Amino acid sequence: MKHHIRIAPPGPKASRIIEITKKHTYDSTFVYPLVIKGGHDCVIEDVDGNEFLDFTSNVGSCPLGYSHPEILQVLKEYSNNGAHKIAGQDFYSEEHAALAERLVSILPRGFKVFLINSGAEAVENSIKIAYRKMGPLPGVSCKNAFHGRTLGALTFTSSKPVQKTNFPELPVLRIKFCITDDDPEINSAENILKENKVAFIISETVQGEGGYSIASKKFIQNLRKLATKYGVPLILDEVQSGLGHTGKWWAFEHYGVEPDIMSMAKALQVGATGFRVELEPTEKGVISSTWGGGARIDMAVGAKTIQVIEKEKLLENAIKMGTVLKNGISELCGKNGIEDVRGIGLMIGIECQSKERRDAVLLSMFRHGILALGAGQKAIRIIPPLIINEEQVNEGISVIHESCSAL
Amino acid sequence: MKHHIRIAPPGPKASRIIEITKKHTYDSTFVYPLVIKGGHDCVIEDVDGNEFLDFTSNVGSCPLGYSHPEILQVLKEYSNNGAHKIAGQDFYSEEHAALAERLVSILPRGFKVFLINSGAEAVENSIKIAYRKMGPLPGVSCKNAFHGRTLGALTFTSSKPVQKTNFPELPVLRIKFCITDDDPEINSAENILKENKVAFIISETVQGEGGYSIASKKFIQNLRKLATKYGVPLILDEVQSGLGHTGKWWAFEHYGVEPDIMSMAKALQVGATGFRVELEPTEKGVISSTWGGGARIDMAVGAKTIQVIEKEKLLENAIKMGTVLKNGISELCGKNGIEDVRGIGLMIGIECQSKERRDAVLLSMFRHGILALGAGQKAIRIIPPLIINEEQVNEGISVIHESCSAL
Repeated sequence: MKHHIRIAPPGPKASRIIEITKKHTYDSTFVYPLVIKGGHDCVIEDVDGNEFLDFTSNVGSCPLGYSHPEILQVLKEYSNNGAHKIAGQDFYSEEHAALAERLVSILPRGFKVFLINSGAEAVENSIKIAYRKMGPLPGVSCKNAFHGRTLGALTFTSSKPVQKTNFPELPVLRIKFCITDDDPEINSAENILKENKVAFIISETVQGEGGYSIASKKFIQNLRKLATKYGVPLILDEVQSGLGHTGKWWAFEHYGVEPDIMSMAKALQVGATGFRVELEPTEKGVISSTWGGGARIDMAVGAKTIQVIEKEKLLENAIKMGTVLKNGISELCGKNGIEDVRGIGLMIGIECQSKERRDAVLLSMFRHGILALGAGQKAIRIIPPLIINEEQVNEGISVIHESCSAL
Repeated sequence: MKHHIRIAPPGPKASRIIEITKKHTYDSTFVYPLVIKGGHDCVIEDVDGNEFLDFTSNVGSCPLGYSHPEILQVLKEYSNNGAHKIAGQDFYSEEHAALAERLVSILPRGFKVFLINSGAEAVENSIKIAYRKMGPLPGVSCKNAFHGRTLGALTFTSSKPVQKTNFPELPVLRIKFCITDDDPEINSAENILKENKVAFIISETVQGEGGYSIASKKFIQNLRKLATKYGVPLILDEVQSGLGHTGKWWAFEHYGVEPDIMSMAKALQVGATGFRVELEPTEKGVISSTWGGGARIDMAVGAKTIQVIEKEKLLENAIKMGTVLKNGISELCGKNGIEDVRGIGLMIGIECQSKERRDAVLLSMFRHGILALGAGQKAIRIIPPLIINEEQVNEGISVIHESCSAL
């Protein structure tokens, strides 16, 4: 079965554009010879007229898929706004206020937000808020974590050596990211906190880039208890998992805990740091950015995205479709080189027996018109738009089965 | 004289939006009770119907002013594009290729680019490219420099204590930023390079946030010679000065030197790192970003901005209008608490005798309908859109004179 592949990609137009890109830019992490042109629903169109069913949502940043009528309406409104790229933290705008207000409405009670440009910057500002309070002490982070690629955030990242080789680091202490309640290291943070003054503990609950590993409930609840006991801010990174892909607004809601500081981006369309109001810097100018919150269009699309997720009950859809998807893929487990299938809601990881195997499955899926990305060393990352329906989920399952068994 | 001020800001609409913003966000660096609604030419409109002549261009990021017909045309095209927020370094897009190609056409020969989300991220990627080659050694940067607020870039920033208090740093060695050729420290970098292995030298040629100070020609040329002599990459930061505000594409062109690596953003609409192709990482995945280059709209507006600057000869206009503006303001020098007027092209700094004096002049200008921002400890930052005309320049001069002498 092929999902509307007319010309095996790259077609002629894609080839030309890829050639220009490689000529003038660093060939970074581009995965497929796919040149995006447009899209509708959960379907991405390339420049040669091919259509792909999207199980990436651009790493979670297109939660409403493509050409959602309410998003197109926002873009249309701003096509007449001659001051779309002025806002940030120097000038006020209604979009900034509206996004902040809407975002606070779905955050833990007593939070304020700071809008910024990207997920990496959201993490940078999370740790800066903690440092400001605690001083330039070491931060505690998890092995295999990914918190972004700017050098502050990157210090607390350790998912892939290539992302860090030769780069200097800030002071850091690392603990194991425990995925089972009976892990003997489930309480290892306490040894560190007993012996060291630290500025913060930072963790994901679902490791994204690190391989779609899901933290054990006890591990996260321990971190929360220890952070409180030792008076250290707990930062939870929701850049990839936040705004609905786990079937709740925030992945930490599955753990019955609340962070002191949190980082958000991707699905939100802009970066944002949320923090308990007690942690707000008391002086003006501690954190800022010319574009903080991106262009006004981005903030308007972000606010509308939250509204649409609420109105269309997409959190419920993420749980429902995620269950169908995980069950359907789980049948592969233990067969055809698939070692594990795990996930919460529409964030599903398929662990393959090797990187080669994983890459082969991804390529086969691509040739069948289904887009997914890798995560960790040898996992497939499945994170479709929140609007995905059962027919599309079943199409995905069928192609994943075919791709795994054909190899 | 008042430039279309109908209601003393904040008017009723602005007041409400500012209240919401302060309630839900950190009150960071907002300067005026001004809530942007739209704009045309060099004029910004607030939500209460006031109009301001803009001498900030949002710190250089609105070089074509507001509602430029060719920019509105781009926004209009993308208002029907249902996949505006997918690109980055995972998927190719024509906008990415087109912006890279156009940008390379105005960079030093033999450069490639890497697109990213902000100026801070452009600096982070500049220093990462240097570290990758040289190892995690100290970097050399200038006193009073501003290179961004993420913790890597912030290490090499030292313009204001509030931006750094309590934050940890990477290894750094600082030199004086010399503004006169006869400064006794003009060659201080050599002592450092003799005694230390370093990863890079990073500098601005026109310090932006640091106070619109202009480096001496000999100082920058020395840095270039020393970098070559000691085999250390020279990074020049063009985030604020780049893309035309000094009357050349890049401020370093005024110095007859070329960097090995450079950071860009603001006027470009997205962040970008340029680097000599010999410095390109040889392995894939060293640097990347989900949104690298922002949304496809941003990249398309960036490419169009370069085109319009060329077509409308705005570099020439920046020189011409900059000269009129600087001459007009220079008459104030030594009078009314104005200590110095300096600048290249449309980047002009007015040094006041005190911070209080500076803030009073800015507030008076604002009340007269002219927007400018502060820089450094006590300077006024003048950086109007590149499209500004003589009538607007003269209006600005007249209000600046009035504001300075009325106090």
